[in-house]
Amino acid sequence: MRRTRYCDFTWGIVFYSVEIPNKTIEIFDTTLRDGEQTPGVSFTHEKKLEIARQLDRLGVNIIEAGFPISSAGEKEAVKDISRLGLNCIVCGLARVVKADIDACLDADVGMVHTFVSTSDIQREHTIKKSREEVVAMAVEAVEYIKRHGLPCLFSAMDATRTDVDYLIKVFKAAEDAGADILNIPDTVGVASPVSMKGLTAEVYKNVRVPIAVHCHNDFGLAVANSLAAVEAGAKQVQVTMNSLGERAGNADLAQVVMSLHSIYGVRTTIRTRHLVETARVIERFSGIPISPTQPVVGANAFSHESGIHSHGVIEESKTFEPGIMTPEMVGHQRRLVLGKHTGKHAVKKILNDSGLEPTEAELNAILERVKALGDKGKKVTDVDLYAITEAVMGEVAHAEKRIVLDELSVMTGNMVTPTATVRLTVDGKQYVGAMTGVGPVDAALKAVESLVNGPNRMRLREFRMEAITGGSDALAEVMVGVEDDKGHMVTARAAREDIVRASVEALVNAMNRLSTISKK
Amino acid sequence: MRRTRYCDFTWGIVFYSVEIPNKTIEIFDTTLRDGEQTPGVSFTHEKKLEIARQLDRLGVNIIEAGFPISSAGEKEAVKDISRLGLNCIVCGLARVVKADIDACLDADVGMVHTFVSTSDIQREHTIKKSREEVVAMAVEAVEYIKRHGLPCLFSAMDATRTDVDYLIKVFKAAEDAGADILNIPDTVGVASPVSMKGLTAEVYKNVRVPIAVHCHNDFGLAVANSLAAVEAGAKQVQVTMNSLGERAGNADLAQVVMSLHSIYGVRTTIRTRHLVETARVIERFSGIPISPTQPVVGANAFSHESGIHSHGVIEESKTFEPGIMTPEMVGHQRRLVLGKHTGKHAVKKILNDSGLEPTEAELNAILERVKALGDKGKKVTDVDLYAITEAVMGEVAHAEKRIVLDELSVMTGNMVTPTATVRLTVDGKQYVGAMTGVGPVDAALKAVESLVNGPNRMRLREFRMEAITGGSDALAEVMVGVEDDKGHMVTARAAREDIVRASVEALVNAMNRLSTISKK
Repeated sequence: MRRTRYCDFTWGIVFYSVEIPNKTIEIFDTTLRDGEQTPGVSFTHEKKLEIARQLDRLGVNIIEAGFPISSAGEKEAVKDISRLGLNCIVCGLARVVKADIDACLDADVGMVHTFVSTSDIQREHTIKKSREEVVAMAVEAVEYIKRHGLPCLFSAMDATRTDVDYLIKVFKAAEDAGADILNIPDTVGVASPVSMKGLTAEVYKNVRVPIAVHCHNDFGLAVANSLAAVEAGAKQVQVTMNSLGERAGNADLAQVVMSLHSIYGVRTTIRTRHLVETARVIERFSGIPISPTQPVVGANAFSHESGIHSHGVIEESKTFEPGIMTPEMVGHQRRLVLGKHTGKHAVKKILNDSGLEPTEAELNAILERVKALGDKGKKVTDVDLYAITEAVMGEVAHAEKRIVLDELSVMTGNMVTPTATVRLTVDGKQYVGAMTGVGPVDAALKAVESLVNGPNRMRLREFRMEAITGGSDALAEVMVGVEDDKGHMVTARAAREDIVRASVEALVNAMNRLSTISKK
Repeated sequence: MRRTRYCDFTWGIVFYSVEIPNKTIEIFDTTLRDGEQTPGVSFTHEKKLEIARQLDRLGVNIIEAGFPISSAGEKEAVKDISRLGLNCIVCGLARVVKADIDACLDADVGMVHTFVSTSDIQREHTIKKSREEVVAMAVEAVEYIKRHGLPCLFSAMDATRTDVDYLIKVFKAAEDAGADILNIPDTVGVASPVSMKGLTAEVYKNVRVPIAVHCHNDFGLAVANSLAAVEAGAKQVQVTMNSLGERAGNADLAQVVMSLHSIYGVRTTIRTRHLVETARVIERFSGIPISPTQPVVGANAFSHESGIHSHGVIEESKTFEPGIMTPEMVGHQRRLVLGKHTGKHAVKKILNDSGLEPTEAELNAILERVKALGDKGKKVTDVDLYAITEAVMGEVAHAEKRIVLDELSVMTGNMVTPTATVRLTVDGKQYVGAMTGVGPVDAALKAVESLVNGPNRMRLREFRMEAITGGSDALAEVMVGVEDDKGHMVTARAAREDIVRASVEALVNAMNRLSTISKK
């Protein structure tokens, strides 16, 4: 270990780095296989193809498209992905069993990933084979794959709980049988970076072919363990988007790649500006929400609320952001969030950006009300801020609201089509209309949309409801995004115990705000 | 580095470990301060007291209760927490400014944590002081705290981007002024484990008082970096529950503690069996949902779906779980989840546990239908499994449904109290009734509950709706938990585009299942 300085010298980072054997690291994405094994996650055929295309756009080197032997549908999906003509290699998973490998071959894969348990605990309780039998099975499978002219990745499942001398014996046998790459999986996520580095180093000095690493996140160490393996010579890292996978999931693609690029200065083929977009595709398809605090791609990754942090970021974003990773690099956006920790600088910046110039006294009054709202445990949205500003600065701040909700009434049930009736005042004129929908929220929002027409049409582009935990009387929090023909977009939030009213309120608020912007 | 073997020898773990200077590590929880700085999070006064009590029950050594200078409400909360008579030390945060420290003293804290930016980038853009001025301010603040007889923790904010020679100079000055512990914050989360270990080692050899570490998670490395600091001599780790905090949050308490206990074999005072319960309290109060894949405390942490994994876990849980961390250790539960990857062993085990003994042929038929449901991208709940089993095994499996929903009609709007009318057949008799609620879901569930009375009353104990992303016509997925007087609990899920119907359906399903169990 030596002390070196790199990254942006001017802001004084000191890194204690190690020499890394490989300057380019391959990214093997296993979202379609490990990711789909996340309890409760299942991708339909069409979604699988779309995920494969998105991962290819992102620039991964290899995708593991599935486990063809597991079902006819799975094999069909892998086959269709193989035929998409992607730039990346399409890999299929197979136990060290002829039938599994044949299923991969049938699916026209460009690579076969074959695996067998090598730890005593898994050998004895699941496959019930001796150490010698496992070696023989591995060799046979690798030779079979190579006879069919395909690249072969061999995994020693549960490698981190395998006797290391035996592990090396298995790996050497697989290498001699023709394996192109040897994978060290930390199947149950028990490694620490120190142990992963030590184990990888030991394998590295005993084999000639490249090494891959596959880490699980049971103790929250999957990313660090992957990087530790890279430090010790691993050439390939196996990851999933959004850290999906069995139990606590696999090493996260975005975190591994950004660490490699920004901290280690190592290359990958990933087009990092597609990271957030890709994460959101996987979020939508998997139904597993991205936590706001998820590193790199989470909603909060570049958000700032506290006075000290926001003030610093407004002056110079590197003060309270990594700097070596910016929102632009990963396709994200910086956000200043309002709340009880908000400082004057953040409020002033948001208002100035909207063309409002409150006096010092007005600014103090606005800040006080924002903090009071936050003290009640409430989130403070843009629309709240403008409402407060309007109240403090008077009519100057905003024109009257274009759209006023006069009446809303919604009906649903098991013997009635969800129907909403809405009466709105738009630009001073009253409109009334009714629409049906797939549910009460859908009907209500469609009814509002249908009444707010005109030269510049506004459309609902985004609808998001936060998860509700607790009781059926908990607050439902809705966020909507509305876009007009000119491409302006405004988001607004509303929270009520009644989800239908919260949704309509958020939509009307967003439409009013958007009307103000469009006029400018 | 030396190769050692520890943990459970029989299953062959090989760890490459390092000697750790401290065999007991202090846990400094900062959920109430850093955690509350999570954009969008704000705890009310009462919730703060409850969080403090819960953290004390969990066994943390120190809690940072807040930043008293920031508002009158904050100071009041810190004061009330200080007077709770907790076992842990209650610490207050202060800039290196007399007014901030006075606010801590007013709040009767048992320790003051004072901090100042030491990196050039933060010094120049935020506090605008020279390096020398920063040293003088730090010394003055520490001396002021010590004159008041309180323990003092000193933090060099943005330490990991601070010139290391200057950093050591600041730390030595703070130590000479009387600081009891010196904290190395990785404020913007740019460290890697190697650099954190290197930096901590350098500080460790230059100071005499204990070292603390405070890591942010921008690259997903906060836990690993905290552990790396411990390897190099840190005595205290600063953490938050659920990894809350600015941007991607702080090092997660549960992950750090379980790694220390299970991987490093190091002690803390944490009662780990309270981890899941504590995480859920913080989830409820913060409104930031715990991701299912969150390590240690997430819903999936000990869940298994795929055939290979479930089969292994049924035989011997250590095969596909860390083993060195069990669900019991952290207050969690092992779950077998059904889906397209489900294997025969899992289905058989779940049915046998319910007293059902399908034949081999029946079992195959059930499995096929479970997989088909999963292939459509659907989650498969307990109630689904029993419905399928019933269909395959005939009347034997289950009595008729006790409760049948005949009619549901619900009304809401801005000028009408949410009202639901329900017609149910319960034990062959028809009942009709109406209830109001805070919203349409609440009204509908209350109406159903009111009609299903009898000797063994069933109550709604849990209501959870998954977040909806996409459009207003997306599927709403509801999970309910229902409990009877005997303490039996059943959960059921339903998904529909209409959230009201989904909620009622899940409740009726759960009640039917619960009735079957109660009869036995």
